[in-house]
Amino acid sequence: MLGVCYYPEHWDESRWESDARRMRELGISFVRIGEFAWSRLEPRRDSFTFDWLDRAIDVLTAAGLKIVLGTPTATPPKWLVDECPDIVPYDEQGRPRGFGSRRHYTFSSQTWWKESARIVEIVAKRYGAHPGIVGWQTDNEYGCHDTTLSWGPEDLKSFKRWLRLRYQSTDQLNESWGTVFWSMELQSFDDVALPNLTVTEPNPATRLDFWRFHSDQVAAYDSMQCEIIRKHSPGRWITHNFMGFVSDFDHFQVADNLDLASWDSYPIGFVEKFPFTEAERNRWAETSHPDIASYHHDLYRAVGKGRFWVMEQQPGPVNWAPWNPVPKPGMVRLWTWEALAHGAEVVSYFRWRQAPFAQEQMHAGLNLAGLDEWSPGGLEARTVAEELTTLGALPQTDKAPVALLFDYQSYWTTMIQPQGRDFRYEELCFRWYEGLRRLGLNVDFVRPGASLEGYPLVVVPCMTEVDEATRAALEKAEGTVLIGARTGSRDRNFRIPQNLPPGPLADLTGNRVVQVSSLRPGLSDSVSGDVSGAGIRWREYLETTADVLARFANGDPALTQKGNVLYLACWADEALLGAVLTQVAEKAGLDTLPVPDFIRIRRRGNLVFAFNYGTEDWPLPTGVERVQGEAVLKPQAVAIWRG
Amino acid sequence: MLGVCYYPEHWDESRWESDARRMRELGISFVRIGEFAWSRLEPRRDSFTFDWLDRAIDVLTAAGLKIVLGTPTATPPKWLVDECPDIVPYDEQGRPRGFGSRRHYTFSSQTWWKESARIVEIVAKRYGAHPGIVGWQTDNEYGCHDTTLSWGPEDLKSFKRWLRLRYQSTDQLNESWGTVFWSMELQSFDDVALPNLTVTEPNPATRLDFWRFHSDQVAAYDSMQCEIIRKHSPGRWITHNFMGFVSDFDHFQVADNLDLASWDSYPIGFVEKFPFTEAERNRWAETSHPDIASYHHDLYRAVGKGRFWVMEQQPGPVNWAPWNPVPKPGMVRLWTWEALAHGAEVVSYFRWRQAPFAQEQMHAGLNLAGLDEWSPGGLEARTVAEELTTLGALPQTDKAPVALLFDYQSYWTTMIQPQGRDFRYEELCFRWYEGLRRLGLNVDFVRPGASLEGYPLVVVPCMTEVDEATRAALEKAEGTVLIGARTGSRDRNFRIPQNLPPGPLADLTGNRVVQVSSLRPGLSDSVSGDVSGAGIRWREYLETTADVLARFANGDPALTQKGNVLYLACWADEALLGAVLTQVAEKAGLDTLPVPDFIRIRRRGNLVFAFNYGTEDWPLPTGVERVQGEAVLKPQAVAIWRG
Amino acid sequence: MLGVCYYPEHWDESRWESDARRMRELGISFVRIGEFAWSRLEPRRDSFTFDWLDRAIDVLTAAGLKIVLGTPTATPPKWLVDECPDIVPYDEQGRPRGFGSRRHYTFSSQTWWKESARIVEIVAKRYGAHPGIVGWQTDNEYGCHDTTLSWGPEDLKSFKRWLRLRYQSTDQLNESWGTVFWSMELQSFDDVALPNLTVTEPNPATRLDFWRFHSDQVAAYDSMQCEIIRKHSPGRWITHNFMGFVSDFDHFQVADNLDLASWDSYPIGFVEKFPFTEAERNRWAETSHPDIASYHHDLYRAVGKGRFWVMEQQPGPVNWAPWNPVPKPGMVRLWTWEALAHGAEVVSYFRWRQAPFAQEQMHAGLNLAGLDEWSPGGLEARTVAEELTTLGALPQTDKAPVALLFDYQSYWTTMIQPQGRDFRYEELCFRWYEGLRRLGLNVDFVRPGASLEGYPLVVVPCMTEVDEATRAALEKAEGTVLIGARTGSRDRNFRIPQNLPPGPLADLTGNRVVQVSSLRPGLSDSVSGDVSGAGIRWREYLETTADVLARFANGDPALTQKGNVLYLACWADEALLGAVLTQVAEKAGLDTLPVPDFIRIRRRGNLVFAFNYGTEDWPLPTGVERVQGEAVLKPQAVAIWRG
Repeated sequence: MLGVCYYPEHWDESRWESDARRMRELGISFVRIGEFAWSRLEPRRDSFTFDWLDRAIDVLTAAGLKIVLGTPTATPPKWLVDECPDIVPYDEQGRPRGFGSRRHYTFSSQTWWKESARIVEIVAKRYGAHPGIVGWQTDNEYGCHDTTLSWGPEDLKSFKRWLRLRYQSTDQLNESWGTVFWSMELQSFDDVALPNLTVTEPNPATRLDFWRFHSDQVAAYDSMQCEIIRKHSPGRWITHNFMGFVSDFDHFQVADNLDLASWDSYPIGFVEKFPFTEAERNRWAETSHPDIASYHHDLYRAVGKGRFWVMEQQPGPVNWAPWNPVPKPGMVRLWTWEALAHGAEVVSYFRWRQAPFAQEQMHAGLNLAGLDEWSPGGLEARTVAEELTTLGALPQTDKAPVALLFDYQSYWTTMIQPQGRDFRYEELCFRWYEGLRRLGLNVDFVRPGASLEGYPLVVVPCMTEVDEATRAALEKAEGTVLIGARTGSRDRNFRIPQNLPPGPLADLTGNRVVQVSSLRPGLSDSVSGDVSGAGIRWREYLETTADVLARFANGDPALTQKGNVLYLACWADEALLGAVLTQVAEKAGLDTLPVPDFIRIRRRGNLVFAFNYGTEDWPLPTGVERVQGEAVLKPQAVAIWRG
Repeated sequence: MLGVCYYPEHWDESRWESDARRMRELGISFVRIGEFAWSRLEPRRDSFTFDWLDRAIDVLTAAGLKIVLGTPTATPPKWLVDECPDIVPYDEQGRPRGFGSRRHYTFSSQTWWKESARIVEIVAKRYGAHPGIVGWQTDNEYGCHDTTLSWGPEDLKSFKRWLRLRYQSTDQLNESWGTVFWSMELQSFDDVALPNLTVTEPNPATRLDFWRFHSDQVAAYDSMQCEIIRKHSPGRWITHNFMGFVSDFDHFQVADNLDLASWDSYPIGFVEKFPFTEAERNRWAETSHPDIASYHHDLYRAVGKGRFWVMEQQPGPVNWAPWNPVPKPGMVRLWTWEALAHGAEVVSYFRWRQAPFAQEQMHAGLNLAGLDEWSPGGLEARTVAEELTTLGALPQTDKAPVALLFDYQSYWTTMIQPQGRDFRYEELCFRWYEGLRRLGLNVDFVRPGASLEGYPLVVVPCMTEVDEATRAALEKAEGTVLIGARTGSRDRNFRIPQNLPPGPLADLTGNRVVQVSSLRPGLSDSVSGDVSGAGIRWREYLETTADVLARFANGDPALTQKGNVLYLACWADEALLGAVLTQVAEKAGLDTLPVPDFIRIRRRGNLVFAFNYGTEDWPLPTGVERVQGEAVLKPQAVAIWRG
Repeated sequence: MLGVCYYPEHWDESRWESDARRMRELGISFVRIGEFAWSRLEPRRDSFTFDWLDRAIDVLTAAGLKIVLGTPTATPPKWLVDECPDIVPYDEQGRPRGFGSRRHYTFSSQTWWKESARIVEIVAKRYGAHPGIVGWQTDNEYGCHDTTLSWGPEDLKSFKRWLRLRYQSTDQLNESWGTVFWSMELQSFDDVALPNLTVTEPNPATRLDFWRFHSDQVAAYDSMQCEIIRKHSPGRWITHNFMGFVSDFDHFQVADNLDLASWDSYPIGFVEKFPFTEAERNRWAETSHPDIASYHHDLYRAVGKGRFWVMEQQPGPVNWAPWNPVPKPGMVRLWTWEALAHGAEVVSYFRWRQAPFAQEQMHAGLNLAGLDEWSPGGLEARTVAEELTTLGALPQTDKAPVALLFDYQSYWTTMIQPQGRDFRYEELCFRWYEGLRRLGLNVDFVRPGASLEGYPLVVVPCMTEVDEATRAALEKAEGTVLIGARTGSRDRNFRIPQNLPPGPLADLTGNRVVQVSSLRPGLSDSVSGDVSGAGIRWREYLETTADVLARFANGDPALTQKGNVLYLACWADEALLGAVLTQVAEKAGLDTLPVPDFIRIRRRGNLVFAFNYGTEDWPLPTGVERVQGEAVLKPQAVAIWRG
């Protein structure tokens, strides 16, 4: 199903009906509105102007559109910021981040919680039972523009409160953080200081707690909104629109409160944001890298416990990346089909019509800037709508053969203590994902502690703190398990485990990590044996009781196996990673279908989808029963067959 | 004519007479003094010590030198800053920029205006009628060290006042800025906040107004100084010394108050400042790029309505660039002749004698540091003086065959919203200028709205907002007109025009821009047809009713022509730019004389000047009647012939 | 002799005895303790808990270890910072640098001096006469994390005081600084402002005084600690542990108060810190560059007036560099022997046991993290201990044949005014040192003003201000003297000398520097004559009455000789530098033994040590009487012979 993001407040009321009609004509079923409209709903405190939104909702509903209503908390209006200056966030440099754009609030402010609850309740009460409203979006893009963490007085206050609850006593706190080091000991919770602007790096344990604290706040804040909405809007689902490559808070935890996940898919902008090589950036500039969108689809399917939307789908060039090329013709259609292949319930385009004003004026919409005229992306959306009608309902999304364990805390931990400047958790997970996808495999993300039963193959690129539930799940896993370096390298208090890494996985892996080396670009350590290639960036020195499948140049173990559990003692370069993943897929008995690096396939139920991100044709496997597309998959084309 | 910048306050009074005599011996006619001397004129409030300046002026006048007196406002003394802390500027990070160097004031401070008026009046009254004084310089290098914009409390206060005048009502303001976006609506002008330190980018319309506001302030401040000077110093001209590649305020607007423009020419430092390639930087490190100085000569001739000086001419190595090489022998002479060829009335060297102390101690002068001994640059200046005497008066500067429309606001607009990181307005104009100069063409800069009559060729590299006067002038232009991408892409309120770009030029060009793509380095889109090459950085998707002269690889129009108006739908690479400029010069019926990339020629009246920036000889065109120089132009040499 | 850094407060008391015993077993004689323990000694003001330290000292003493006790001033506890917020330093951006790591104090705070004196006195009184205490370390790593300079209100206050003492009158100050430039004149010492956050660069003379002021403060602060310690701990020596490539204060001046110097040797981290090329960084990543450690050994032997320790020796991978590789096997042993070859009295490893918590948890120790188990580095230390026992006492360290004049102020001067971005004083000295060492020569560092008698060869890479004592010492030197560019280029007030550079060395060298050119990377000026190669980065234009041994391409003098004094008028590239150093060594009549770039040799008395940093074997000179090692020096091996 298709949707669209719409801002009735941006357009003269006289255009609403025609907009609604044209949405339906295009094949749009859902429309998201309202998430930035606070100053139009309450231009002054307690002075409400809901009439326009009433009418907009009626017009859209009348046209047969199902409405997703956003709470407007991402953009507190000027009068509120002036009245309650304690709501603004502070950057790590200690400067307030003021009014003038969006997300100018900190999750730590009690005032802000009160004000948020107030406006959410008012909106939920007014529209909760409206028949046109089918679901809600809380706030907008938590964490966007680095707004998860904040470094102001309210944050310090709330952090102290959180620490009191967690540690009960300063003895406990001092012990956990190891404050005896450098005389950092605290006599009272009031002694806690923000971990910024210190002379050299602050205590990593403090930083991790500061991150956990903020992550907890995001989840609690979202939960607060959900409770209010559920009270006043029974029978409607709630989601939040997450982002790509934002890992500053634990999305699994936030989504525990939600009915489904959604995310905002801007594949082209990510080409500049993700640490690709320059060659990759040039190659994928106008299509995006073939795994960028699907990586997130699979992640958010997990976050949403099986249910997710693309709430904002890039429909053409955008405005916020360093460069913003026009996507190649066909890509808007391709991305849409790809989302559906990965299980998206709805793909909703951002936005209906390009706004000719303000910050996002260079962001394409389904209509040209200010006009009632399809943009190139709009025309592609129309094609998908037609094809969807032809194809009919899509089958269920099945469990994948591969589980990839993803852990937000490992991102925080390695950001706080990279030890090698280019040890980037998200990049690591992405490269493992890419390697699996190039074998033609479907991948499920799984969260820490979740059951791993039923997966022939489980991969853990890196999980710095392995909690008891995860340890148990790994032990219980019957499939082949591949564990990456640095896993189990920290305990709950950011300490090195007493038995050295991999700590709780010592028995499972048969390994002990005695030293680690971070390697600058240009250095590598070759690996050979059952697999070959090289370790780069990170290389561990293992003692092992396991079988050694491959060794570094000096004979040290590089890849070990004990029972069904393999351990890879380095950051693998492309060759080694490909070999290791191929090896474990084989051990797991999986049917792989290696594809060129510009082709991806994805199974959804009994359908197989193929996508061509490249510049060359790709002939489909022979003899397949095609449902859509040609036997030769042209660049930017989509094919579907039964299989 | 030659001049020099002199600081009598830096040298023992016993040396003044000898200095003045040696200036005359060198061939110097004009001497600029006084512009940084406030603390020597008024060491404490209302305690004046003008006697030394009286004597210095008398000594210089007695020697036959004509004096340009600077108002000392670029360096408010410590007592004033302490007394009136509200005069200091703030950087974009919100920090005050304090005493200790220069330009530590904001144009927004009312106190500062009062104090400026006070000191200017005192100085103007005392010296306005002195027979030695022939002209004035207001302040010094407006905008230097990023001092046009300031982000402090005084700036916010003045910005609100300026907005009230511009918009009258908040409704008008909200509508213009599109504040409905992201709930940025304002209920009162007091709600306006500075457009810095926001969570993500502030509203571009706000930023543009903030820039316009500051530009207006510079013009008004300069005008205030001019009024006072004119009252007390009748019959003297007034100038300001502008800078190279500083476009933070509208120089045309400031110069409306002035009798002539002047600028400070440091060609070598600009090699590091301008975004040249590394290869270009290495090639031109010791001569400067052949168009750097002349680009500004032509710009400031326009700014000065036909009259300009070089107020400060680099006489050797300087101190302020990342690297400061000694110019190749001959370059000081070459630059001086080049300025004259482009119409400079006076070339004034900075400075008479290298100061052995303080910030600019590594800046060469005509005399060695602290000594009465010619520096290498001093000796070259002497050569020029002798040659000038031989040559006699230079002919008038004629109108050029090519007009290049230059627009400061387009610089602000594209800085605020580059959309592609390397879309740099000044670079674009420079490359177009370079292309024209390599065809041997004289170029006039013209300001927005100015008449374009009499120009066989008009080029508009980019003008984001095309006001009505400019539109009319373009329509009226009988010559060939070449318009570059992004022209007409914004209205007065930083909105995309209702008819899409090029907005008011839709009819004139026959075009409508439907999409734009910004291309990262490494991406390009080849162009072929009447011209060939490639589009880089910026590429537009046109609908056109015009003739298509060249197309992109996919068949889209790249260069169109409707009547006498051509439109180029991309940032052209070197090959394409050269081809397009050759093409339009041909269409315009111009006589071109393509020169190697290290040679430049310039006509002034019936004289043709040639300059060799390279390392190879260049034989002059055969049969010309040489006035100066050899038939073969050696590296760093100058030749003059009649033509 | 070997030592180790130990933190009894980090480990349960039950482990101390075993730790002490195992230290002795390893061959450790000295143990440094206490330098970060303030919060454990005085958890609240005037509430002391010395009992644990009493017991720890007793346990260590009982085991036969000699104790070096650190004053705990590098880590003021939280209660003190809260009570006396005026002790915290400010960064150059004007932000306080708060509690949470270490070195959070400014040397300018009077409160801090009082508090430091108080705790030092208490500690010195309590332990000064303890028989186990053999020496003291003041504070820890002055200047680490950029903590020499501070930019807060206390700093301004103290700077004004310092200036009053230095200049007596503002007339004197204004004259010295040349404040007439840009109206920077001051009417009172109260007018002095901090030289940061100015609009453009502040006065270089002010900056230099600000740097001298801070350097003086470090020396005076250290002297204050020493006086207290000496009063209460007669017969014990005092040292401070200096750092590598920290030149923000004058180490010679600080060490005037000390009995011996010591430094913290982390050779691998410096590969990232020093401006090596990327190729060098990759080549030396796992061994360090062969001159990094020895350069500092020789420097600190001079700082310590002949006596120095390595107080902290890297025993494996560390945590604080961008990348932290495991050193190649053998390097910990090699570095230890190398320190001894250069005259170190003791090499003390940092640290006994890797801490599993807090900031340095990834820093290796002699024992694995948290365990009683030798790390790879621990095993190498054991080997050295055994070898030392076999070898017996080492001979005295003799005077070297080469003196290298090193001057901290020249570092400050060229940092303040690089003039060419890559003119880096430390890099220059290092490259000269490297060149001498590749000739197999021992090198002594000498401080400004010291006697140069008895040195066949004296090299002065650069000394910007040549004071009278240094001038006299150079004149008196009978050996060959090589003086580098920029020497004598500034007087005491940061002015260009009245006779131009080299100022006081004009007669000695026969030269006058008329112009200087700083050359961007990619530019060079070839040199030929008795030596050949090229000048890069910096190139002077000389007038000379001396003999010209080599000339630049245009014939200008590049290398001159007058009597025994040579002057090199540029920054030499590798070829030219090698040639010049070979030339002067020859003129000085030195026996050189050129070695491959991965081999270094060092004489100590009648022993010659050789070290192999490379990947290839190196055959020892034939016929030598080997004391240790093989005839072929393997990679990472050490050999000793008599010679």
